[in-house]
Amino acid sequence: MERNLQIRLARRPVGEPSVEDFRIVEEAVPSPGPGEVLLQTQWLSLDPYMRGRMSELRSYVPPVALDAVMVGGTVGKVLASNDPRFAVGDLALGYGGWQRYSVEPADTLQKLDPAMAHPSYALGILGMPGQTAFCALNDIGAPKAGETLVVSAAAGAVGQVAGQLGKVAGCRVVGVAGGAEKCRYVVEELGFDACIDRKSASLDEALAHHCPEGIDIYFDNTAGAILEAVMKRLRLGARIPLVGLIEQYNATQMPKGPNLAPLLVARAKIEGFLVSDHAAHTRIFLNTVGALLQQGKLAYREDIVEGLEAAPQAFIGLLRGANLGKLLVRAA
Amino acid sequence: MERNLQIRLARRPVGEPSVEDFRIVEEAVPSPGPGEVLLQTQWLSLDPYMRGRMSELRSYVPPVALDAVMVGGTVGKVLASNDPRFAVGDLALGYGGWQRYSVEPADTLQKLDPAMAHPSYALGILGMPGQTAFCALNDIGAPKAGETLVVSAAAGAVGQVAGQLGKVAGCRVVGVAGGAEKCRYVVEELGFDACIDRKSASLDEALAHHCPEGIDIYFDNTAGAILEAVMKRLRLGARIPLVGLIEQYNATQMPKGPNLAPLLVARAKIEGFLVSDHAAHTRIFLNTVGALLQQGKLAYREDIVEGLEAAPQAFIGLLRGANLGKLLVRAA
Repeated sequence: MERNLQIRLARRPVGEPSVEDFRIVEEAVPSPGPGEVLLQTQWLSLDPYMRGRMSELRSYVPPVALDAVMVGGTVGKVLASNDPRFAVGDLALGYGGWQRYSVEPADTLQKLDPAMAHPSYALGILGMPGQTAFCALNDIGAPKAGETLVVSAAAGAVGQVAGQLGKVAGCRVVGVAGGAEKCRYVVEELGFDACIDRKSASLDEALAHHCPEGIDIYFDNTAGAILEAVMKRLRLGARIPLVGLIEQYNATQMPKGPNLAPLLVARAKIEGFLVSDHAAHTRIFLNTVGALLQQGKLAYREDIVEGLEAAPQAFIGLLRGANLGKLLVRAA
Repeated sequence: MERNLQIRLARRPVGEPSVEDFRIVEEAVPSPGPGEVLLQTQWLSLDPYMRGRMSELRSYVPPVALDAVMVGGTVGKVLASNDPRFAVGDLALGYGGWQRYSVEPADTLQKLDPAMAHPSYALGILGMPGQTAFCALNDIGAPKAGETLVVSAAAGAVGQVAGQLGKVAGCRVVGVAGGAEKCRYVVEELGFDACIDRKSASLDEALAHHCPEGIDIYFDNTAGAILEAVMKRLRLGARIPLVGLIEQYNATQMPKGPNLAPLLVARAKIEGFLVSDHAAHTRIFLNTVGALLQQGKLAYREDIVEGLEAAPQAFIGLLRGANLGKLLVRAA
């Protein structure tokens, strides 16, 4: 049998990660114990939250230990199973990490429908990023028809779904993304009303131009400069789900945030969101977004990298905004 | 008849106001038109929000015009009335401003119960500051028994009520106030569990000491350094009603705010509050706080300044934290 290729955390990055922060090793393919399943990774999801796991700072889960395999959501094919719920050949959603083979407790796996056209979607629009978009937009954003929604990282895994769901809810939706190609994608393929290029435009002027009535909801994947500019244009009762902090994941010291006076003036709120709190809404999310997808009402793009060995460089690119759409590694 | 002494806005202050920003003038006592009432000011309320009205920055209401009478809540005695609802000698809550006599539309006045032991309380614990404490604590803070509540400007008009209501709700309540005398008042007279002197203590260390389990609710009257320190100790699901910004009312440019990463980690929220949105809760506020006061379950202190001429200096002191309790001017 083949050896297990693994990508491990070699050292904790300071600032932007480099490929030297990762170590590629090979070891024996593990054997599943009682109640466990051996999977061959088909797809590995790369997500910004992983940068936090590489650091020792306080967060909502413990960091990856040094020399441990990098964590990550995966779709795997069952090669051996010690649990009656999984048979050889099944596809399962799990948390196998950055490696070719993983042994996972059957309890932590979710079997995928063999008829699923795109199993990788379970890591994207029909998985954690999609549910993040759906729950943060609805539970905190509470969109109403006619309102103005701004979405940062609009061409990313979460942003592309959040903005389209805002359109479904009847909002005027303005994206913010890095570069002309992403902006074209956001407007022409995703159907946002406008998209601001954070790399070329003056954010203040562009927001004033595209949100003349102000901003009711800001779906914040980035914090930083975009949040600061948005704060100047909040409408009365505005809601800001704080979903990601991409602009500061690589920061060596925490930057200051925006002045909060506009929250008081507008009686607005900023609320932190983590999808794992919203497991009770998984069914309604899958029903709603699954149906919209099947009806062709949602566009969705993946950015696919070939081979696990390419994961470190792709992940570094993700933090720089190099991807367009949901970033995935095709591992087999 | 006596002349009307008025305190007008002479110029817009840059930074901390000075007495030269105000002008004391005398003019004829006005006559009430149809539906209007002439009042002699008994009590003038001085509140931090007035600093915002002196500036031209965007806020929730327009600024005071140059050379106009400074605005402010008042309790006045009716001297003449062109409205059947008010008789000479009645006491009324209104918005007469910094002047000895005012003419106000009867519709904007609220008659006070002649049996009211302390008419000035209508400007404090049974008025706008009390309702701010009650509504912001309950509507946004949502206190539960056993939770930890931190209140800044704890010896001020709003803070002293908010913290005591937190105690009634079963919270552990920690105040932050400026100086040993205020801290003593907050703990010994108001019954908070602890009070941190922002002038002498290290906020980080003091919060760690007094809130070992973290902070569930931060009733924020100040923003600035206290908010930043609190952000480091938020418990899961923490709520921060943003009620005042005393630390920055005199700022010549808006300071940056706290890094917002802790909101995401704790899935916490910061929400701006303005009491005028909560008029629907006035009755339940008055019933609840009125009853607690009557039962002797709430302590309450006023800081009384004699004579309208003293209002500018007292207001400047308010912004420096010189007052202990609700600041009022006895005008007659």
